[in-house]
Amino acid sequence: MRLKEIGEFGLIDRIARRVPRKAGVPIGIGDDAAAINPTPGCVTLVTTDMLVEGVHFDLALCDPITLGRKSAAVNLSDIAAMGGRPRHCLLSLAIPQDLPVEFLDGFLTGLLERAQEFDVALVGGDTCSSRGGLVISITLMGEQLPDLVVSRRGAQPGDLIFVTGTLGDSALGLNLLRKGERSGAAVLKHLDPPPRVREGLALAEAGIPSAMIDVSDGLLGDLGHILELSRVGALINLDKLPVSTAFTATKSALGEDPFLFPLAGGEDYELLFTAPPARKSAAFALFDSLGTALSVIGEITAEGVKIVGVDGGDYKAAAQSYNHFSP
Amino acid sequence: MRLKEIGEFGLIDRIARRVPRKAGVPIGIGDDAAAINPTPGCVTLVTTDMLVEGVHFDLALCDPITLGRKSAAVNLSDIAAMGGRPRHCLLSLAIPQDLPVEFLDGFLTGLLERAQEFDVALVGGDTCSSRGGLVISITLMGEQLPDLVVSRRGAQPGDLIFVTGTLGDSALGLNLLRKGERSGAAVLKHLDPPPRVREGLALAEAGIPSAMIDVSDGLLGDLGHILELSRVGALINLDKLPVSTAFTATKSALGEDPFLFPLAGGEDYELLFTAPPARKSAAFALFDSLGTALSVIGEITAEGVKIVGVDGGDYKAAAQSYNHFSP
Repeated sequence: MRLKEIGEFGLIDRIARRVPRKAGVPIGIGDDAAAINPTPGCVTLVTTDMLVEGVHFDLALCDPITLGRKSAAVNLSDIAAMGGRPRHCLLSLAIPQDLPVEFLDGFLTGLLERAQEFDVALVGGDTCSSRGGLVISITLMGEQLPDLVVSRRGAQPGDLIFVTGTLGDSALGLNLLRKGERSGAAVLKHLDPPPRVREGLALAEAGIPSAMIDVSDGLLGDLGHILELSRVGALINLDKLPVSTAFTATKSALGEDPFLFPLAGGEDYELLFTAPPARKSAAFALFDSLGTALSVIGEITAEGVKIVGVDGGDYKAAAQSYNHFSP
Repeated sequence: MRLKEIGEFGLIDRIARRVPRKAGVPIGIGDDAAAINPTPGCVTLVTTDMLVEGVHFDLALCDPITLGRKSAAVNLSDIAAMGGRPRHCLLSLAIPQDLPVEFLDGFLTGLLERAQEFDVALVGGDTCSSRGGLVISITLMGEQLPDLVVSRRGAQPGDLIFVTGTLGDSALGLNLLRKGERSGAAVLKHLDPPPRVREGLALAEAGIPSAMIDVSDGLLGDLGHILELSRVGALINLDKLPVSTAFTATKSALGEDPFLFPLAGGEDYELLFTAPPARKSAAFALFDSLGTALSVIGEITAEGVKIVGVDGGDYKAAAQSYNHFSP
């Protein structure tokens, strides 16, 4: 079915009908604005991400359901990185005229799956036509008690640097997708990354992190944001970087420096945080109970960034992270 | 200057440096999410609008500053239509690689002008590259006491139908722009519509409207949303439609039914609201004090939509409103 058969308001109705009604949402989809009830005593956390066809995704390499899941996940990951509880989202779509309605149905299925998994209500948005490709813009609101919010500032020299899960799989997965692979752990991590919402929330509630960010652009680039805002440096040990068995099995075939994948690959959507050494055992106990891998990859220093190679010598990374508009 | 010379984070820094720090924003631009303090006792109102090059605007017909002002205005208008006080916004941009940085500087100037006029803080957003044209996505948050929020539901048979300002100028302005005009009241209304924030807020605080919406798609279409959600009908008098002197002077040259401009033209960003006849004098006294024109254009009926022509007979409109994805 084509969009012109149902029109803009037909599409909005089609979306609204699939959204479960939620408590705490006095006005949802279908008014000039949504009205939501903030929890007394909490600050509101708000983040937004745009996903552009041809830049962030390629319709030849992803199905609509996983694209919907990933679109939700990249925003959930930002609220997780603040230690927040996600609550409400808005979905805007600029849609090419010839995109089948069934594609949008699938996209919404994926988005709502991830939203429901983390108890998030879709409360509004915007739909319009696009003369270029599909553009997805999602705004996600969450909340947390002010004292528990974790920012990128606050890392102190001597703090340990922690990372959840494994790094580099998403970039490896994209590499494999472009070579024709359509399955496997790395491909799945790229197409459908799990947002670390429970982990971020548990860390914040336990008061463990001194600073936190999600690894969306690449470890070195995202660590750089913490270092810049906290005005500190870091020492990273290459042999401590957590990589998956899929990564280890494949890396010899990559034909370039394999450490670039975990160091600068991007889109892992793992949490990178710092905490004093005295909180190390509490952090590992917490992640044991969550069933999520946790690694210490280095420590915060007074200034500069030093990477220790597997041979114990200095390592120089050829890239830091993904940068839109770079030459 | 080109974007690749400053990069994504250079652009974000360039934006952040121009944003004044505000009270009530514990964390602004530059973290995974912004943190804002909701006012105790208020609901949060949230709206989002996407503006797509080639669909919503034509870079040959607008300068960057007015585009920035209008991008803010269309969102401010939605919060106004709920009777809310706008407070915080997010700006996302998908940017063609060859767009000069100076264009974005001008756009931000316009956006921040309108934001400051209504005491709104820019607290975050996203920037990425676009393979198509420029895409602007703005999310605006506001607030209001729950009992004062005005939705599209609530119009009752017998209520009068009010509209602020004049209708049809924006569509006339676009018509003139496409014919080469670059100035005049109608062109200005199209390029730089004033959002009726003070009017919406004053109406809500006085408890006057039973239902309200902003006229973004066209009077008949937007009235239709109120009628559908309130389950009522309407009688509109064509000779009561408020039109500007610019419109009256030009309409004979339009070469088509001139009433289509005020009835279905869209993008006027005036407020359309309903209220019991007993509140009519209070409404006019309020608008006198605000210095904004107010008109009664008809009344709410039990069902159906009837338009009385200037000759007293039935009038049939050839169009209702703008619809993305219509054939």
